[in-house]
Amino acid sequence: MSKILVLHGPNLNLLGIREPDMYGSETLVGINGQLKGKITAAGHEFEAFQSNAEHELVDKVQSARGNTAFIIINPGAFTHTSVALRDALTGVSIPFIEVHLSNIFKREEFRRHSYFTDVAEGSIVGLGSLGYSLAVEAALQHLSKKV
Amino acid sequence: MSKILVLHGPNLNLLGIREPDMYGSETLVGINGQLKGKITAAGHEFEAFQSNAEHELVDKVQSARGNTAFIIINPGAFTHTSVALRDALTGVSIPFIEVHLSNIFKREEFRRHSYFTDVAEGSIVGLGSLGYSLAVEAALQHLSKKV
Amino acid sequence: MSKILVLHGPNLNLLGIREPDMYGSETLVGINGQLKGKITAAGHEFEAFQSNAEHELVDKVQSARGNTAFIIINPGAFTHTSVALRDALTGVSIPFIEVHLSNIFKREEFRRHSYFTDVAEGSIVGLGSLGYSLAVEAALQHLSKKV
Amino acid sequence: MSKILVLHGPNLNLLGIREPDMYGSETLVGINGQLKGKITAAGHEFEAFQSNAEHELVDKVQSARGNTAFIIINPGAFTHTSVALRDALTGVSIPFIEVHLSNIFKREEFRRHSYFTDVAEGSIVGLGSLGYSLAVEAALQHLSKKV
Amino acid sequence: MSKILVLHGPNLNLLGIREPDMYGSETLVGINGQLKGKITAAGHEFEAFQSNAEHELVDKVQSARGNTAFIIINPGAFTHTSVALRDALTGVSIPFIEVHLSNIFKREEFRRHSYFTDVAEGSIVGLGSLGYSLAVEAALQHLSKKV
Amino acid sequence: MSKILVLHGPNLNLLGIREPDMYGSETLVGINGQLKGKITAAGHEFEAFQSNAEHELVDKVQSARGNTAFIIINPGAFTHTSVALRDALTGVSIPFIEVHLSNIFKREEFRRHSYFTDVAEGSIVGLGSLGYSLAVEAALQHLSKKV
Amino acid sequence: MSKILVLHGPNLNLLGIREPDMYGSETLVGINGQLKGKITAAGHEFEAFQSNAEHELVDKVQSARGNTAFIIINPGAFTHTSVALRDALTGVSIPFIEVHLSNIFKREEFRRHSYFTDVAEGSIVGLGSLGYSLAVEAALQHLSKKV
Amino acid sequence: MSKILVLHGPNLNLLGIREPDMYGSETLVGINGQLKGKITAAGHEFEAFQSNAEHELVDKVQSARGNTAFIIINPGAFTHTSVALRDALTGVSIPFIEVHLSNIFKREEFRRHSYFTDVAEGSIVGLGSLGYSLAVEAALQHLSKKV
Amino acid sequence: MSKILVLHGPNLNLLGIREPDMYGSETLVGINGQLKGKITAAGHEFEAFQSNAEHELVDKVQSARGNTAFIIINPGAFTHTSVALRDALTGVSIPFIEVHLSNIFKREEFRRHSYFTDVAEGSIVGLGSLGYSLAVEAALQHLSKKV
Amino acid sequence: MSKILVLHGPNLNLLGIREPDMYGSETLVGINGQLKGKITAAGHEFEAFQSNAEHELVDKVQSARGNTAFIIINPGAFTHTSVALRDALTGVSIPFIEVHLSNIFKREEFRRHSYFTDVAEGSIVGLGSLGYSLAVEAALQHLSKKV
Amino acid sequence: MSKILVLHGPNLNLLGIREPDMYGSETLVGINGQLKGKITAAGHEFEAFQSNAEHELVDKVQSARGNTAFIIINPGAFTHTSVALRDALTGVSIPFIEVHLSNIFKREEFRRHSYFTDVAEGSIVGLGSLGYSLAVEAALQHLSKKV
Amino acid sequence: MSKILVLHGPNLNLLGIREPDMYGSETLVGINGQLKGKITAAGHEFEAFQSNAEHELVDKVQSARGNTAFIIINPGAFTHTSVALRDALTGVSIPFIEVHLSNIFKREEFRRHSYFTDVAEGSIVGLGSLGYSLAVEAALQHLSKKV
Repeated sequence: MSKILVLHGPNLNLLGIREPDMYGSETLVGINGQLKGKITAAGHEFEAFQSNAEHELVDKVQSARGNTAFIIINPGAFTHTSVALRDALTGVSIPFIEVHLSNIFKREEFRRHSYFTDVAEGSIVGLGSLGYSLAVEAALQHLSKKV
Repeated sequence: MSKILVLHGPNLNLLGIREPDMYGSETLVGINGQLKGKITAAGHEFEAFQSNAEHELVDKVQSARGNTAFIIINPGAFTHTSVALRDALTGVSIPFIEVHLSNIFKREEFRRHSYFTDVAEGSIVGLGSLGYSLAVEAALQHLSKKV
Repeated sequence: MSKILVLHGPNLNLLGIREPDMYGSETLVGINGQLKGKITAAGHEFEAFQSNAEHELVDKVQSARGNTAFIIINPGAFTHTSVALRDALTGVSIPFIEVHLSNIFKREEFRRHSYFTDVAEGSIVGLGSLGYSLAVEAALQHLSKKV
Repeated sequence: MSKILVLHGPNLNLLGIREPDMYGSETLVGINGQLKGKITAAGHEFEAFQSNAEHELVDKVQSARGNTAFIIINPGAFTHTSVALRDALTGVSIPFIEVHLSNIFKREEFRRHSYFTDVAEGSIVGLGSLGYSLAVEAALQHLSKKV
Repeated sequence: MSKILVLHGPNLNLLGIREPDMYGSETLVGINGQLKGKITAAGHEFEAFQSNAEHELVDKVQSARGNTAFIIINPGAFTHTSVALRDALTGVSIPFIEVHLSNIFKREEFRRHSYFTDVAEGSIVGLGSLGYSLAVEAALQHLSKKV
Repeated sequence: MSKILVLHGPNLNLLGIREPDMYGSETLVGINGQLKGKITAAGHEFEAFQSNAEHELVDKVQSARGNTAFIIINPGAFTHTSVALRDALTGVSIPFIEVHLSNIFKREEFRRHSYFTDVAEGSIVGLGSLGYSLAVEAALQHLSKKV
Repeated sequence: MSKILVLHGPNLNLLGIREPDMYGSETLVGINGQLKGKITAAGHEFEAFQSNAEHELVDKVQSARGNTAFIIINPGAFTHTSVALRDALTGVSIPFIEVHLSNIFKREEFRRHSYFTDVAEGSIVGLGSLGYSLAVEAALQHLSKKV
Repeated sequence: MSKILVLHGPNLNLLGIREPDMYGSETLVGINGQLKGKITAAGHEFEAFQSNAEHELVDKVQSARGNTAFIIINPGAFTHTSVALRDALTGVSIPFIEVHLSNIFKREEFRRHSYFTDVAEGSIVGLGSLGYSLAVEAALQHLSKKV
Repeated sequence: MSKILVLHGPNLNLLGIREPDMYGSETLVGINGQLKGKITAAGHEFEAFQSNAEHELVDKVQSARGNTAFIIINPGAFTHTSVALRDALTGVSIPFIEVHLSNIFKREEFRRHSYFTDVAEGSIVGLGSLGYSLAVEAALQHLSKKV
Repeated sequence: MSKILVLHGPNLNLLGIREPDMYGSETLVGINGQLKGKITAAGHEFEAFQSNAEHELVDKVQSARGNTAFIIINPGAFTHTSVALRDALTGVSIPFIEVHLSNIFKREEFRRHSYFTDVAEGSIVGLGSLGYSLAVEAALQHLSKKV
Repeated sequence: MSKILVLHGPNLNLLGIREPDMYGSETLVGINGQLKGKITAAGHEFEAFQSNAEHELVDKVQSARGNTAFIIINPGAFTHTSVALRDALTGVSIPFIEVHLSNIFKREEFRRHSYFTDVAEGSIVGLGSLGYSLAVEAALQHLSKKV
Repeated sequence: MSKILVLHGPNLNLLGIREPDMYGSETLVGINGQLKGKITAAGHEFEAFQSNAEHELVDKVQSARGNTAFIIINPGAFTHTSVALRDALTGVSIPFIEVHLSNIFKREEFRRHSYFTDVAEGSIVGLGSLGYSLAVEAALQHLSKKV
């Protein structure tokens, strides 16, 4: 049994409230519930964490060292600004997938650059909350290969 | 009666102390006092908040949802770096004006770009603490039109 | 019952042969087999098409008009060069997802730009052949919502 | 008693007529009237001048030397193209504030650069005709400090 | 009966004289004569105006509001420098076509950018004086559709 | 009697079907019919060719050598990507005009560059199917001068 | 006997007044007097013209055609913005030298580009009013070679 | 005995015809004849292939896998546009040399970038048809080292 | 006796653990111990502070005002992203040296820019933990000069 | 009596030989002779030095410290590449004028940047050998002011 | 009988010693020997020259004027930095070929630009010492055509 | 016992003379004396070399091969221009540290790029002559590890 950690960046606590045309109407609690179901059904441990604070996400990644097998992260706005979070992820050497709810390539120019994609296993963009679910499948397959 | 929230970004707690040639000799307490007087005299509620922490400003903006009619923000250094704060402001859909004490266009090249101007109602730059006061007038006029 | 069309761009016929460190050891036939199983099991029609010729892919997209509900496309090298294929996809107004086997953000600079991401529903990058499978799930969910 | 000169650049004579969604429905005469009231009430002299001709604005600025204490200028399209007007303003050494009715940072890319901001006292952008009024307040405060 | 206004920018009064290899040997009077013939034959009113002064062209465009159905403009050097003329044209909301005698894409790099093409109906470039004539045809067709 | 060849690039076979707001409701057959009428009425030969394949357009241009007096080309998506087609056109030394139905300067940034404009006689952009017709007039005038 | 025309761009009427640290303390009248002395002593005709209006300079250049052998021009701010004046100068085919009083390469970035240098005979920069005098010598030598 | 494959890109079938000042007066048949003589004299097999179609060149490269020891390629216009051909060459892992008849560094800016040079063994540019011959020598030396 | 403050940015708490090939095998505690020894031996006070939180570093710098003579800072990831920390350092006017363990110029492009170097006394890059020690020597020499 | 040093950079020893269309037919000896006549006639000392070696020019500039009042330099190719020569000139604090025989703004793009113009008194470009002579006049005037 | 001059730039005296993986194991003496054999066998004169000094290479090129028919040059590091050497080569008007041992397009970004390619006859890159030998063949063919 | 070589680039012989505000008042002889003391005290050999000539520095680096264990280099102006010196240093594979007296990041834009930092062990910038001394300490530690 391995742990899969799901990280949500700033303002994702507003999901279902903030700009539903852009981000959909599901809440973060709802999404986490679905992911937990899927992960525990596969015999693995689930943990989710959301924060508007860069350092709390960095701390959480650091503390995942040694007890977490895979990370799924939607860095939100930190996608475009946080080298610290990138460094934390590469520092703990835990494989991770980057997820974005909206299609960031259809939006402002500055959202086209991510500090995470080139060090992630891969990325899933623009598929709404389904993107998290697909990332969980990828994580589960990754874990099954490891065994 | 509506609430006007005035947000001050990092290092603005040093006002009156730090580089007075650049930022003037008034303190933040003094400025807030003047703004409060002006806003309460107009029959509205005043709240001010300063933080050096991006997430505290994000949290404050999120909590303003539903109880605040207008925001005046001097994002300080976050002007040039914080997508999270921008996303919080657009996420809660509260109109806001961006204020800068110094003329950021006379300074380092990197200060010429703001993550806020294109989503703000407008901006007031380079007029010292008077800039806040003018922003309050704009806010009050905005509120009077809404009624 | 709707048709899902899976398009593979140039050199993807070499899958399993060409640079397995980069693209994995599965063959295109094997991948298509898995996708077909998944799609037909969900009661939909499956079609796959690979070509090294830009115009054959354009023709295929044009002919999908009116009989295809969703497209999954790995444009391969055309990702970075084909405006014609982009125009065909937007011209027929069929929703599509872009898939890349390798993490194109870890490779040459010119692979960082895609002519498809900003007009796609979304994109799945770097997850190997699993990426196609996840795209199929997204397609199926998309179709189930339409009904 | 000092003179405050208010300059309006090209096409601002169309105010209230041209693109009201962008520029509001007040006319230039109306705006000038309000500003005059405010300035004369404060015991100062008011002069306004609009021109579609760059050289007329340059001439006006040159002739302001020695008889004008402050300039408020909305350079309109010349914001982005007129070095001559910039040079006139720095040449006569009269402090000035730059005003824009619309939020130029929400519009075409070329409107993001101004030849005036880095030599102005400050700028007020996006607040409609209220921006002029706020600039007058700033000018009056400036004059009161000088005395 | 509608009016079609033909505007010629700076130095076009030199046509037939200045650099005939580049601009051809016809004079402006000659060209205007042909256009007038074509327009009046179609039952419309013709007016032509050439100026070396940006503000005179801006004034002319402003005064066309309400009495002119279509504008054909060769902005000459102002193509690359005049935001004021662009703003006048969008301000009066009269449809217009941009014409260039020479192929500006074969010349200096700075001639590759126009402030007009993205707000024009269309543009005709490099076909000499015939370009004006073709623009007239387009204008006439435009007017016939309106009726 | 000379031949005028009209070339249509990829996806132009969808005319009247694909994005009519952008490209109009006329079909390619309809347009070709009009052009043929105009050209044969002037005593010249007409040929039209559309292809989604770059090499077929290159082959067609090469085979036009020695039997074609003028080319009218709408390179479609190849406008922005095909050096091969450019080289074919300069290689056979047949004068040509570039036509675009939509105003490419109002669209995505990448559509602002053409590999053809600097080697064409001229270009007609944004005037819908009328653009082809005007190009035919220019071709006919070109041929009449040659005689 | 030939005529040498000396043109002064916008704000140069302020010479001796505006920013003397940058531009020196001599007046334009004084400078013109010296140049006239030098030119008439050499048996040539002198004319000087200053304007803040681009079109007046364009008109002056156009009217110089056929009666002027050499032009010395300090385009002032138009150095960086006026394609129209450049086109006038190349249109009349009169050789000219570009003069700048201040060292434009020590100033704002935008002053580093000139629309005139690549079509001028040469340029003299940063030598104050002496620059005009040296340009006159170059003009006189040019004329003596022509004879 | 090994096979050396010589590939010629689009428009190279026009050699000797198209722009002889740029590309020389030899025909492709003539050049291939010389190369064949040189290669067979060295005891190796020769094959040549020219196409205007990107996919035919991709197919040819793919089919060379396992039977070809070295490739000499002049990608013509595809030099600057074809990622697909680059991917085919790196996909089959056959060493190759890039040849250009003309000096592409003396021509249009866009010809300065090649998608092939950084994955080729080396490149020979600007030496006309002799370039192919020198590439054959390099290929032969490469093969002799392998033995 | 003066205080020297040593600041460590995000993820530096992982020293000795995270990517030892890049950052070495010494721990932060070990490094601080050495620096403390060196500084107290010279008769000065030592304080060290590490945080993953930008605002905690900003707060620490602000609180150093009036009690700290010199700062040595390794901003870690904040080197490339934190204007707030830069502003805090210039705001308190305490001289500082910037230290980096790894050679940031050998790494990703985005690590080549620092928001600190141009306002620091100087910088020491790529010398591992010795870099801190050398910075202490520079600080001590700085203090000795002040006395 | 002061010394004026005239420095000529690489390849200027070829003057009169190399590309006479570009650089004129006068030799360096001839030019130096004229300058010497002019300078000694004014009662000053003349020295000239040409070198193809950057370090010899640096050495010469260094040795001019204390015995030379003005430098006239045509850095030739070093204009665009030598920071060392720039540093030598600013290091010895001798005022200098930069001269170029040809109009470097009409030539290759890389010749548009000079490492000298922003630290020179001024520059004279494109006037052939007369440029040196004019620079001498400027130097003489400079010296006369000093006295 | 004509002379062919072979020039080797800085650090090429280290050939066979320095970074053999990059530059091969042959020494410069060995390479020169082979080239001499080939050139003298063809009845021509051979001269080779290596220098780490830019000015010595410039001098050598200047002295080749009138006695040398062809130059083969590997400018080494000067490829990317020496305008002086470029000017010497164009100044003496001797045709030359540029040779690079390593594939400079696979290395650091700054090695992608050469000051020589656009004025050379052609270039041979990445083929090791064989590149020199092929350049000699090209030179010999060039000389044979001249006769 | 190992040798440490200290290299000083162009104009550093002027230390203590040239721009003391920028570079300090110590002479090069004084600095070398201190370094020698430190190095010989540690039982190693010291050699210093200054030159204004790039090739002399290249020669010195080449001759260090086999007899020098560490190099400390202040390339002066060559920092920004000399690929040859970079190549010499990587060619001899001797570890080196780059030192700059002044803070090059506070100066002209072109001084922000170094051809040395990415191949150096590390760099010390802006600490005046102390920087050399610290570099010696780093060198000594490096040597002690090697033993």
